Amino acid sequence: MRTYYCGELRPEHIGETVTLCGWVDRYRDHGGVTFLDLRDRTGIVQIVSDPQRTPDSYERANDLRNEYVVRVTGRVTQRPEESLNPKVPTGDVEIYADAIELLNAVHKPLPFQVATANSESVREDLRLKYRYLDLRRERMRHNLKLRAEVIKTLRRYLEDQKGFLEVETPILTRSTPEGARDYLVPSRVNPNEWFALPQSPQLFKQILMVSGFDRYYQIARCFRDEDLRADRQPEFTQLDMEMSFLSEEEILQLNEDLICHLFKTVKGIDLPRPFPRLTYAEAMGRYGTDKPDTRFGLELVDVSDIMKDSGFKVFSGAIANGGIVKVLPIPGGNEAISNVRIKPGGDLFKEASEAGAKGIAYIRVRENGEIDTIGAIKDNLTEEQKQELLSRTGAEAGHLLLFGAGAADVVNKTLDRLRQVIGRELGLIDSNKINLLWVTDFPMFEWNADEKRLEPLHHPFTAPNPEDLDDLKTARAQAYDLTYNGLEIGGGSLRIYQRDVQQQVFETIGLSPEEAYNKFGFLLEAFEYGTPPHGGIAYGLDRLVMLLAGEESIRDVIAFPKTQQARCLLTDAPSDVDAKQLKELHVASTYKPKS
Amino acid sequence: MRTYYCGELRPEHIGETVTLCGWVDRYRDHGGVTFLDLRDRTGIVQIVSDPQRTPDSYERANDLRNEYVVRVTGRVTQRPEESLNPKVPTGDVEIYADAIELLNAVHKPLPFQVATANSESVREDLRLKYRYLDLRRERMRHNLKLRAEVIKTLRRYLEDQKGFLEVETPILTRSTPEGARDYLVPSRVNPNEWFALPQSPQLFKQILMVSGFDRYYQIARCFRDEDLRADRQPEFTQLDMEMSFLSEEEILQLNEDLICHLFKTVKGIDLPRPFPRLTYAEAMGRYGTDKPDTRFGLELVDVSDIMKDSGFKVFSGAIANGGIVKVLPIPGGNEAISNVRIKPGGDLFKEASEAGAKGIAYIRVRENGEIDTIGAIKDNLTEEQKQELLSRTGAEAGHLLLFGAGAADVVNKTLDRLRQVIGRELGLIDSNKINLLWVTDFPMFEWNADEKRLEPLHHPFTAPNPEDLDDLKTARAQAYDLTYNGLEIGGGSLRIYQRDVQQQVFETIGLSPEEAYNKFGFLLEAFEYGTPPHGGIAYGLDRLVMLLAGEESIRDVIAFPKTQQARCLLTDAPSDVDAKQLKELHVASTYKPKS
Repeated sequence: MRTYYCGELRPEHIGETVTLCGWVDRYRDHGGVTFLDLRDRTGIVQIVSDPQRTPDSYERANDLRNEYVVRVTGRVTQRPEESLNPKVPTGDVEIYADAIELLNAVHKPLPFQVATANSESVREDLRLKYRYLDLRRERMRHNLKLRAEVIKTLRRYLEDQKGFLEVETPILTRSTPEGARDYLVPSRVNPNEWFALPQSPQLFKQILMVSGFDRYYQIARCFRDEDLRADRQPEFTQLDMEMSFLSEEEILQLNEDLICHLFKTVKGIDLPRPFPRLTYAEAMGRYGTDKPDTRFGLELVDVSDIMKDSGFKVFSGAIANGGIVKVLPIPGGNEAISNVRIKPGGDLFKEASEAGAKGIAYIRVRENGEIDTIGAIKDNLTEEQKQELLSRTGAEAGHLLLFGAGAADVVNKTLDRLRQVIGRELGLIDSNKINLLWVTDFPMFEWNADEKRLEPLHHPFTAPNPEDLDDLKTARAQAYDLTYNGLEIGGGSLRIYQRDVQQQVFETIGLSPEEAYNKFGFLLEAFEYGTPPHGGIAYGLDRLVMLLAGEESIRDVIAFPKTQQARCLLTDAPSDVDAKQLKELHVASTYKPKS
Repeated sequence: MRTYYCGELRPEHIGETVTLCGWVDRYRDHGGVTFLDLRDRTGIVQIVSDPQRTPDSYERANDLRNEYVVRVTGRVTQRPEESLNPKVPTGDVEIYADAIELLNAVHKPLPFQVATANSESVREDLRLKYRYLDLRRERMRHNLKLRAEVIKTLRRYLEDQKGFLEVETPILTRSTPEGARDYLVPSRVNPNEWFALPQSPQLFKQILMVSGFDRYYQIARCFRDEDLRADRQPEFTQLDMEMSFLSEEEILQLNEDLICHLFKTVKGIDLPRPFPRLTYAEAMGRYGTDKPDTRFGLELVDVSDIMKDSGFKVFSGAIANGGIVKVLPIPGGNEAISNVRIKPGGDLFKEASEAGAKGIAYIRVRENGEIDTIGAIKDNLTEEQKQELLSRTGAEAGHLLLFGAGAADVVNKTLDRLRQVIGRELGLIDSNKINLLWVTDFPMFEWNADEKRLEPLHHPFTAPNPEDLDDLKTARAQAYDLTYNGLEIGGGSLRIYQRDVQQQVFETIGLSPEEAYNKFGFLLEAFEYGTPPHGGIAYGLDRLVMLLAGEESIRDVIAFPKTQQARCLLTDAPSDVDAKQLKELHVASTYKPKS
């Protein structure tokens, strides 16, 4: 139906008669001459119709409105000097329209403007309901193209350079309740039984290693029935990989190859190698989080040893109760941050409260090592403690020291939040920086205070560090996360492949052999028949594309996302269904609306 | 952990010390020397250990058993002349094992042999339960590699040569009950509402055309809750495509380009262009089916006009009732096919019965135009009718003519089945032939006798042939199927993009505007805002790979398929779930087992 895409036309086509198809991006009448911007997915080109030169198309041109679908045939012409538009790649030419065929009109008022030049912000619910119009806009067109480019680049690199084989794993599978809630699907043929949608292809990819496939990858759809947070979706996409006969170091190197290739290909950026690494312990110590944004400093300092004998009971008491005292030293903080913000009612106090802290102690460092703080701290700090504190934190005149004291997890969470807020506020974050960071040596287990038992931090197939087998409870795992400017984009581990180690891990989390078999029977059975050493990683593709696109929500890199209420505003899913359908499935709703 | 894959070693590596990882494929003791075939996904290589030359590995080598996982380090050596094995690519060399490290053992008896040389047939339920062992066998390794190669080839061609963009569409979507049953997923957050798993991305891909993406593809997982037949799966994969601003002819050409590229790349076969085409009417007329196997002749002949005045009431009555009489002429059939097989109790009679026929009339053609048949036919056939019959069917001495008489659909189904059975039996099918065939011009609607109304043959967005708009009831659709040796591998159509045509189609199938809006509201709404002419196609990827692999079941080209009872024997899905899970979802089973 056409001879070119709109965005392809260049001066070399001048003189040619071309046929184009697309949407009316913009419409202007200029001294009796009609100008249209015609848009397709490659870009826009200017169409001209005037009563003298192209009388056949002129009347039709005047009937057109924005977003009408047309086919235009005309001659590619050099634009006059004064109309050259260097902002668009087709800006040297225009098409004098011999014929304009209306292929389809717009029958209702547009809920928002689509035109390329129009970048007005539109309410997200409108964008999602009229997604087909939102997807015509340059921003979303760009984002989905980038998404396809990212996936293409990852696939081809893994296939061509690293010998990975793509294998599809089932979507209708078995419920293995670990981590988040499963989405369930009733089976009609097997009444009273249910499929679950996979939270990840974890078990299948390990089975593929037992099957000898050696290197597996998949762009895998995964499902989690969570109470949604800002950047979560009921269904999401991950790049899922698993490899046999590779050490942790070999897996990290292979993944650095992959990520560097991706950045080079889609962004033209050479990332520095090797990626920096922090152990989990280091990351928690210096940043209070396992996914630190290392684009700026403001590192935390542990001063528990200095404060353990302090007369200030908030500090010494915290330590006596098994807690810690840490400091966030802020150069220039005296000037930048007022007491009002730190005290109850202040914004920083609020941040700390939301992280679980009761408050924030602080010290302001003045000239000559003088300090300014509440009496209870000042009166209870010996000169020696003060000197050690100033020296340990590198504090100089103008520094503000913010303290967290209490249980380690609360202290870390509190100071991590304050560090991020203040880092942003002080302009310490260079938004052009791209910091990729491996965090390694995660602990095997964390304490579940509710159920009073150890739980696997990742999943119960994560391999412990061989050096730590003597005391699994405190063992480090051979697990690794890749973070990007403080967001986790990927994570994985070596897996347990020896039955005795697996047995020890189940014992440590208090899972009897029977329970283990009930939960993971088919995988444990598979492990009996010659399991190779193996490990893997999975990347959150939506988030990775979001970061590469410079967007702040994964909804902006997904063609048809759901809202935070897990609804699709385009199709209005989920929905009622016919009673007949439920009857055939042998299921019923038990929901009683509160009246 | 290794320096080479097993299958890579060649004479050029002789003298090198290499480290390999893999499974013990086979184990032999030969005059006090141990020979192992070591296998990884690239193939096998021979490992040698003897007490003199490699004493360090000898004891370990003798402890190994089939499917143990080992790491071997040793020197690549030229095999002695008499041990060269030209059957395997590594057959010129062997590795003298300096060290053998046992990475993992097999702890239970193998349910079946895995070894490469062993091609014994194994019960399918065992293969599916121990899928990880089945996937180690050469056949499945080959099939899944081929599957990945097919998908890779299709993707790259569409992306690089044809400008298609991959877009992911939702798996959790809205129920639009058309065609098969939907799989449903209860929403926890929106109680009493349900998601459905998509039967195809049909509505989303049309939305993407409204969105201006121009050319979309996806390797899409689709779901149908059907009573399973031999080659159906609850979830299956299709190559899904949609294109804007292309005519039907352009779409067919683009798809021929794609399929030819695929066959050339993965099979080295140059398919002849253009692919032959039959209209639906021609295919039904000549073969009785819309997916004819055109590798052999045995074409049907309509003789209704000859028989309409016949005194044989079975024929003339069928026609008087609006039916037809058709013949399957079989050269040499007199000799090959006995009367016993055609009469009640015979195998051909049974085929006909299963197709809905009451029986098969026949005529045997003898020398000099004499015929042999039951009296009721012979006595009621005028000489003129007989001559016309023999001439129309090209019948000569030795021909057997099998007749179908009655409703057109039953006659066609019957003779199609007989034609296929007899074609196979007479060795008329050259299994090396690859016949690709377009079937075009499907009817828009078919009559649903139960509900006494017209139904869309495909779906209600299929575009009618513009020449047939005057009487939509009998209109041809702009729809096309691609068949491969008598199996449908792909199908698609141009879609309706004009609201008035859409309205007419809804009227024709008796769908009121309100009902139409309830069912397809969001798509109809989208069509209001500038819809381009568009069309698409979808290929059943499992079946396509099955045909390319020479397999007879799609289960043999899917890593983790389900049985015909829609169960996964590996994971034992579907399964019971915790009562707590159902409670959170506000659903319950209503199933009452029959006691």
